Amino acid sequence: MTTPTPPPEFEVRPSTLVGERADIQLQRVLAILRNEGMNPNVTMDFSATRPGILCGIGEARALLQKSLPETGAEVWARDDGYAVSAGEVALRIKAPYSAFGLYEGTICGTLAACSGWATAARECVDAAAGVIVFAAPTPYAHPFVAPLVEYAASVGGCVSVSTPRGARLAGVTPTGYMPHTLPMLMGDAVRALQSYDRHMPLEIPRVIIIDTFKDEVEEALNVARALRERLRGVSVSTPPERGGVTPELIKEIRAHLDLNGFQHVDIYATHGMTPEKIRRFTDAEAPVSGFSVSDALVNAPPLAFNADIVEIDGRPIARRGRPPGAPSVPRLNRVL
Amino acid sequence: MTTPTPPPEFEVRPSTLVGERADIQLQRVLAILRNEGMNPNVTMDFSATRPGILCGIGEARALLQKSLPETGAEVWARDDGYAVSAGEVALRIKAPYSAFGLYEGTICGTLAACSGWATAARECVDAAAGVIVFAAPTPYAHPFVAPLVEYAASVGGCVSVSTPRGARLAGVTPTGYMPHTLPMLMGDAVRALQSYDRHMPLEIPRVIIIDTFKDEVEEALNVARALRERLRGVSVSTPPERGGVTPELIKEIRAHLDLNGFQHVDIYATHGMTPEKIRRFTDAEAPVSGFSVSDALVNAPPLAFNADIVEIDGRPIARRGRPPGAPSVPRLNRVL
Amino acid sequence: MTTPTPPPEFEVRPSTLVGERADIQLQRVLAILRNEGMNPNVTMDFSATRPGILCGIGEARALLQKSLPETGAEVWARDDGYAVSAGEVALRIKAPYSAFGLYEGTICGTLAACSGWATAARECVDAAAGVIVFAAPTPYAHPFVAPLVEYAASVGGCVSVSTPRGARLAGVTPTGYMPHTLPMLMGDAVRALQSYDRHMPLEIPRVIIIDTFKDEVEEALNVARALRERLRGVSVSTPPERGGVTPELIKEIRAHLDLNGFQHVDIYATHGMTPEKIRRFTDAEAPVSGFSVSDALVNAPPLAFNADIVEIDGRPIARRGRPPGAPSVPRLNRVL
Amino acid sequence: MTTPTPPPEFEVRPSTLVGERADIQLQRVLAILRNEGMNPNVTMDFSATRPGILCGIGEARALLQKSLPETGAEVWARDDGYAVSAGEVALRIKAPYSAFGLYEGTICGTLAACSGWATAARECVDAAAGVIVFAAPTPYAHPFVAPLVEYAASVGGCVSVSTPRGARLAGVTPTGYMPHTLPMLMGDAVRALQSYDRHMPLEIPRVIIIDTFKDEVEEALNVARALRERLRGVSVSTPPERGGVTPELIKEIRAHLDLNGFQHVDIYATHGMTPEKIRRFTDAEAPVSGFSVSDALVNAPPLAFNADIVEIDGRPIARRGRPPGAPSVPRLNRVL
Amino acid sequence: MTTPTPPPEFEVRPSTLVGERADIQLQRVLAILRNEGMNPNVTMDFSATRPGILCGIGEARALLQKSLPETGAEVWARDDGYAVSAGEVALRIKAPYSAFGLYEGTICGTLAACSGWATAARECVDAAAGVIVFAAPTPYAHPFVAPLVEYAASVGGCVSVSTPRGARLAGVTPTGYMPHTLPMLMGDAVRALQSYDRHMPLEIPRVIIIDTFKDEVEEALNVARALRERLRGVSVSTPPERGGVTPELIKEIRAHLDLNGFQHVDIYATHGMTPEKIRRFTDAEAPVSGFSVSDALVNAPPLAFNADIVEIDGRPIARRGRPPGAPSVPRLNRVL
Amino acid sequence: MTTPTPPPEFEVRPSTLVGERADIQLQRVLAILRNEGMNPNVTMDFSATRPGILCGIGEARALLQKSLPETGAEVWARDDGYAVSAGEVALRIKAPYSAFGLYEGTICGTLAACSGWATAARECVDAAAGVIVFAAPTPYAHPFVAPLVEYAASVGGCVSVSTPRGARLAGVTPTGYMPHTLPMLMGDAVRALQSYDRHMPLEIPRVIIIDTFKDEVEEALNVARALRERLRGVSVSTPPERGGVTPELIKEIRAHLDLNGFQHVDIYATHGMTPEKIRRFTDAEAPVSGFSVSDALVNAPPLAFNADIVEIDGRPIARRGRPPGAPSVPRLNRVL
Repeated sequence: MTTPTPPPEFEVRPSTLVGERADIQLQRVLAILRNEGMNPNVTMDFSATRPGILCGIGEARALLQKSLPETGAEVWARDDGYAVSAGEVALRIKAPYSAFGLYEGTICGTLAACSGWATAARECVDAAAGVIVFAAPTPYAHPFVAPLVEYAASVGGCVSVSTPRGARLAGVTPTGYMPHTLPMLMGDAVRALQSYDRHMPLEIPRVIIIDTFKDEVEEALNVARALRERLRGVSVSTPPERGGVTPELIKEIRAHLDLNGFQHVDIYATHGMTPEKIRRFTDAEAPVSGFSVSDALVNAPPLAFNADIVEIDGRPIARRGRPPGAPSVPRLNRVL
Repeated sequence: MTTPTPPPEFEVRPSTLVGERADIQLQRVLAILRNEGMNPNVTMDFSATRPGILCGIGEARALLQKSLPETGAEVWARDDGYAVSAGEVALRIKAPYSAFGLYEGTICGTLAACSGWATAARECVDAAAGVIVFAAPTPYAHPFVAPLVEYAASVGGCVSVSTPRGARLAGVTPTGYMPHTLPMLMGDAVRALQSYDRHMPLEIPRVIIIDTFKDEVEEALNVARALRERLRGVSVSTPPERGGVTPELIKEIRAHLDLNGFQHVDIYATHGMTPEKIRRFTDAEAPVSGFSVSDALVNAPPLAFNADIVEIDGRPIARRGRPPGAPSVPRLNRVL
Repeated sequence: MTTPTPPPEFEVRPSTLVGERADIQLQRVLAILRNEGMNPNVTMDFSATRPGILCGIGEARALLQKSLPETGAEVWARDDGYAVSAGEVALRIKAPYSAFGLYEGTICGTLAACSGWATAARECVDAAAGVIVFAAPTPYAHPFVAPLVEYAASVGGCVSVSTPRGARLAGVTPTGYMPHTLPMLMGDAVRALQSYDRHMPLEIPRVIIIDTFKDEVEEALNVARALRERLRGVSVSTPPERGGVTPELIKEIRAHLDLNGFQHVDIYATHGMTPEKIRRFTDAEAPVSGFSVSDALVNAPPLAFNADIVEIDGRPIARRGRPPGAPSVPRLNRVL
Repeated sequence: MTTPTPPPEFEVRPSTLVGERADIQLQRVLAILRNEGMNPNVTMDFSATRPGILCGIGEARALLQKSLPETGAEVWARDDGYAVSAGEVALRIKAPYSAFGLYEGTICGTLAACSGWATAARECVDAAAGVIVFAAPTPYAHPFVAPLVEYAASVGGCVSVSTPRGARLAGVTPTGYMPHTLPMLMGDAVRALQSYDRHMPLEIPRVIIIDTFKDEVEEALNVARALRERLRGVSVSTPPERGGVTPELIKEIRAHLDLNGFQHVDIYATHGMTPEKIRRFTDAEAPVSGFSVSDALVNAPPLAFNADIVEIDGRPIARRGRPPGAPSVPRLNRVL
Repeated sequence: MTTPTPPPEFEVRPSTLVGERADIQLQRVLAILRNEGMNPNVTMDFSATRPGILCGIGEARALLQKSLPETGAEVWARDDGYAVSAGEVALRIKAPYSAFGLYEGTICGTLAACSGWATAARECVDAAAGVIVFAAPTPYAHPFVAPLVEYAASVGGCVSVSTPRGARLAGVTPTGYMPHTLPMLMGDAVRALQSYDRHMPLEIPRVIIIDTFKDEVEEALNVARALRERLRGVSVSTPPERGGVTPELIKEIRAHLDLNGFQHVDIYATHGMTPEKIRRFTDAEAPVSGFSVSDALVNAPPLAFNADIVEIDGRPIARRGRPPGAPSVPRLNRVL
Repeated sequence: MTTPTPPPEFEVRPSTLVGERADIQLQRVLAILRNEGMNPNVTMDFSATRPGILCGIGEARALLQKSLPETGAEVWARDDGYAVSAGEVALRIKAPYSAFGLYEGTICGTLAACSGWATAARECVDAAAGVIVFAAPTPYAHPFVAPLVEYAASVGGCVSVSTPRGARLAGVTPTGYMPHTLPMLMGDAVRALQSYDRHMPLEIPRVIIIDTFKDEVEEALNVARALRERLRGVSVSTPPERGGVTPELIKEIRAHLDLNGFQHVDIYATHGMTPEKIRRFTDAEAPVSGFSVSDALVNAPPLAFNADIVEIDGRPIARRGRPPGAPSVPRLNRVL
């Protein structure tokens, strides 16, 4: 992750550009303005409704790049990853209204969704207090956005992600630990691990789930004895019906591994991890080498953004309940 | 909605088919099995972790249709819209593992996201107690999934949606009320309404937002006097900074409209509507003709699904914490 | 308020003096003692049951002055406005019992009522953190005591009051802002203000209510444009049905007034102000120039006082549950 | 209370009539209207802001009788004692504005204060579930209003009151039980009771407080043995420092009185009685013959009334947040 | 338990009889009375302070039998197992004071402790809703009273107990399931069970703990396969660090046992069972054949008894706060 | 208490030694091992499950002394009174299993019960903040353990106890104040006190209960006047039905005693004292000279101990959920 990575190439779908995914009313507004011969220069501010980690600016920029005229339009913004405050302007567009009015809701939705994911990731990362966190949202996120959830998670501080596409967006190598599937199909964790070890390239770390059939401590020792120093780690995802993954369980596995000479085997905690739960591990100083977060990334609500027209042809304006005029926001960078 | 609509055509993205959006570990499992010459017949059950409205089956079916072999595979499922119980199996796949193992997380994510949205919509619809509910998620949902949120909302009981693409999936005509933008750009709600009335086809109902600049009661009378019997309704989205949309406000507007002879003008409530808030309107018998729901659709968490291998080559199996074997589920329909 | 004001002249009603407003049992006690030829010298202590601002001492003194013998009686007290502690003696009467026994409940009631009002006022004043507070209790207090509520409010720190009689007791000029009545009777706030401006003496500041018919921001600009530099302020009392008076609303009005060059126009908050609500304004640094308090003055319960006979003819005594004897209270001043 | 009693004669103070106790702004409104030559016919509705027992209508009527013109004015109202709902109109004045505008706040204040007291009394009476309740507010209410508190308490259902003036307003004989004062002055409860018995007319029932110096059970037996069948009852007001008056204590006193042949001696509970506390006695079936309520009458807040101009010269009108027009209220009686 | 069992023989310790275990002040009272030549006939009532299951009467009777004179004394009581109400008299002694005064506290302590245990047991039994409950208090109760805890538990409804002495008192055969000790000492549960099976008489049911080293499901199948139809049951006491014993775990074990043909093997739940926890099993219809309760029996507080002298030489008497006289209690049986 | 006291002689009952009070399963384990010819050297650790004051080690040592072989066995422990942490090892036995296995539950029960009592006592002592605390558990504890409760209470910090046997174990002189019994039997507290004074040796302090029949203040003065300087103190145990013992009552008694010259008379609070209640006295600086605690000692649950086999013949071992191996615990002392 230290080598410079190219910026992510965000997809702009043609149906988005033609307004197929926008509120139909915005098309009607554009038609009326066209009929009236109006196309004022408008300043529109997008401001966060609660604090969080900004994400989605890159996607918004990619969309506007395809629609704004070459001259006479300006886009100012903070970068993805910026810790935005409640009420703070994160994106400002100054352009003829017809060049971007159709995308008001699209941009709000992009920022809201991506910032919600990035903020959730950051809370997990903060709770982990230095222990690394992986993002693995696929079983909970729709596949159309799962790679974007992973990109947002990396913006929020996760060190790796689980899908090839998400990894490309995030500029990292995808990470995955052997899931329950292989031991189930092979009937035994040790046999599954040996097969994994036989067929996987050397650079893929040997980390295996240990709660499929047997007691976690017993299985941890079984797999450690099978692969010895080639075993990189064990992954624990004990379901809640069996007590869940707890700091006490991690400590017990660690004690037995150490007692049997397997100090080099890492332990990863991977089921239902939330900021609150992660904090219990760090508070208890449980010897976890990494947390994998899944539903916690998508369970949190979007971080909503307000889109406000604050100037029309240079005159300040506001609807009721919103501050009038375009505040000077010196920290925004011109991005288009 | 009474004319028969063709079934929605769900998009299956090529990157999904090749596993670009799946956890990389699933590709590795498939590679190992291939190397070991294993491809068992597997029964995998997808069961809901909490009660809700099932959605996403259509999408999952479209995906499996492209990957399963023509013979020897079966897919059983409940329909989109079915009220699923906690722990209930909603989808069962019986097929050689290599034909669908890659999509385990993809299918879970699809069902979780779509069922979460449909369930949230159903809660709004139930709270509305017979008053119609519109879905307008664009400012809160990522544009890649916004039309799917709308489809799920229609599955949950919403009568209309806001985007062209979402409307096609849901088999309805898209609905939209004049937003704050037009009054702001024209400086005045009456002028905006008159322009709207001038340029919009007759079949589009004249419904206008009345809280942009002026007191809601004053503006309701202004626009009613301007368009008289051609005005279909007014839409209220007073921001929380100004007291929000409340049953008392709706009643006050209604009283003034009636007192001035505008009994035919409907009132729609459209800002921040949640099941709890909608229930306050129905409890107070506020004269609302329709609710528009937006963030309530996406603020709720996904409805997670467990994917469990329950049989391998006919033998029952289970991982720890899950019931072993494939229960007989007579209500599932064979869909592939 | 800097010129020395004469002390307030408290009314002593003849019916009070003859015991018409006292518990009839006290008259019976006096008759029995007379028949028994008993009239012991008694020390009676009046002590507060909870902390608060003492008020009513002036009234009690005026009553006792009319009933106590010229010699052989002593009255010791703290002044109106003193911050009394729970259990602290605020008034001590040493006199033959027959000269004041009839007034035990009357004095308790006077102190309880007036101290309750003064304490409530002080809580508002403390919450305002330096912003001035006006007392306007008339719509909530019985007219027989409304001027006394205002006197007590001034003792508690309010800078002005609303009735002529209350103002005389408090030694201040009465204050009043144009209420909803005039705009309602004239049909329009601007017309009402212009009439007010035409007919009122110059020393009466032009402050007008802006929430009668129109949006507060719109009306604030209307009246400011009508009276320009002669307008002293606007008064906001938005009812709860319309969101109430909030820090956000004040800030929004301020922003529009400033944007249009009306920095000199003050904003007063006047509906349902309580200490908790006032504190929200000061916490949010809302640009309020004054708070008007009404029901908060009378909604709080009286500050009850215990009247205890602590010495009879020099011997300490106590009923069960009360400390025996007359404690030395050095800070009391002899007032009669 | 079965003999017909003359209606109470409410005092109208001259200072009230000339507006000395009214908000000064109302005088200013009247002056402006006079200068403008305006005096519209106005319908003003006074409606309760929460449910309760209406009181103060008699006083309001007495005030209006002195100010309204002989013809062309109407006053409609419900009677004192009516159980008013939230939002219900209790008083309607139709008259030239100048004839009553000055009293808007005065009438609100009268209704608010008196209805607050009557409502508090009713809650005590309801809690007593058939056991009689006496009103004794003097140590907590200002003497200017204490008799009015007693009148309101009788409106709310109290069977007797403590002051001569209050009793006249309520049309009852005043009631009082021997307080702590006499035992304290005489040094002993038995001696005090014997002196009371010697000097009081026969029609005054012998009821004495029993918690001044000694254990309540011991003292109850002492006074019962002293006066035997002439003793009507004992009154218990044990202070909270000594456990307060509880159902258990009442039962224990009752058991000892009965065991010693004093079944005819009633027990009255008299300290700090609130609806909640009274309910504990009735729930426990404690043998109490009467409750005396004091601070509970004045601790509750006023029952605020809104005064709304609903018609001007026959045209419906409303300020923001209030329903427009004068609703038909068939149950109001014409009182002037 | 169907054969008639002899009544339990309660131990009366000599040190109790001579007052070594009683408050020294009671000896002093007896000495003073002796010196004063007083020995009144006293009726002393022992009444429960809260509802519960009476226990300890047998012990109290055994003690009194050794101390009361042969004539002129009476003891009336309810039986062990009676459901006593709050305030209800459960034991009445009428005798010369010197014959039993020394044991007032001893009897209170006996009733309080034993009734507390029996009440706790009854709550467990009630929660089990028909499923049998065993008492196994030894690791939590002092050995001096552990057999009495077991006797009280049988009074409260437990069907068996764990110690030989407790079993004799309760008139049952002691029950015990193989604890963790044997598998730990033998290194393996199957080996331990086989040894147990080899050496234990046939009438002792084969029930073994299955959570010592391995996953409970795996071990349940191991031991069932080892002993087949001779295995009576498995006992689950998973520690909280491993998720505890839950209804889900019981169901999972049951499903695997049934799937493998071991429908005859019972499952017992044995760690940290409380009424609340037991209720969760019965609510979830978990297939448990028996609950073993331990700490729940001694964690509840004693059920305190008041000892009140209610008559002295035939005269009713009471201390403050207690009802005077000896109420007629027809349901008491004469036991001495 | 400054003279060296001999160590307490703990009773080891023969029935305990032969396992009559132990879980029958432990006898079975021993029989099986004997049959198998196994008697491994075992290290068993007893660790506290929550923090508290350790007690019962002396009893456990006395038991082990009678059963362990003279050589080859070691017992390590902390002393009674040690503040043990959650999870901390307090007792370690290294011996052939057959020499102590029978007592595993017995020792756990001894430690749990005694440590629970000592911990409860310590909480009372801590709350008393330097004021002395007496233990008087007899009316709530079973007589078989009441003296042990008192020993544990002295370990927890109580300065004296109430029974002769408990006093011997604790190495103190027993303490007792005159209970309600004597005033009840003699009909009067003063008469009872005079008789007590007549017949009791001089070294027994004259302390008498003052709430039997009369008001506490009145009775305190009565007994003080009767015995004057010979009176050491008064004891207050007002029942909750009469307001209970409160800081205010203590202060009131103190004030009257002082006012009448009885500054030398101490006041003791003795009914229902709990840590929370004691804290209210110390917080209010109530002049209490000592607290007597009774039910608070036995109402708290036992402090459970885990008994874990951690080594067998030198090899570390653990059951699931427990840390493996014998941790080095340097602070344990060898006691056998």
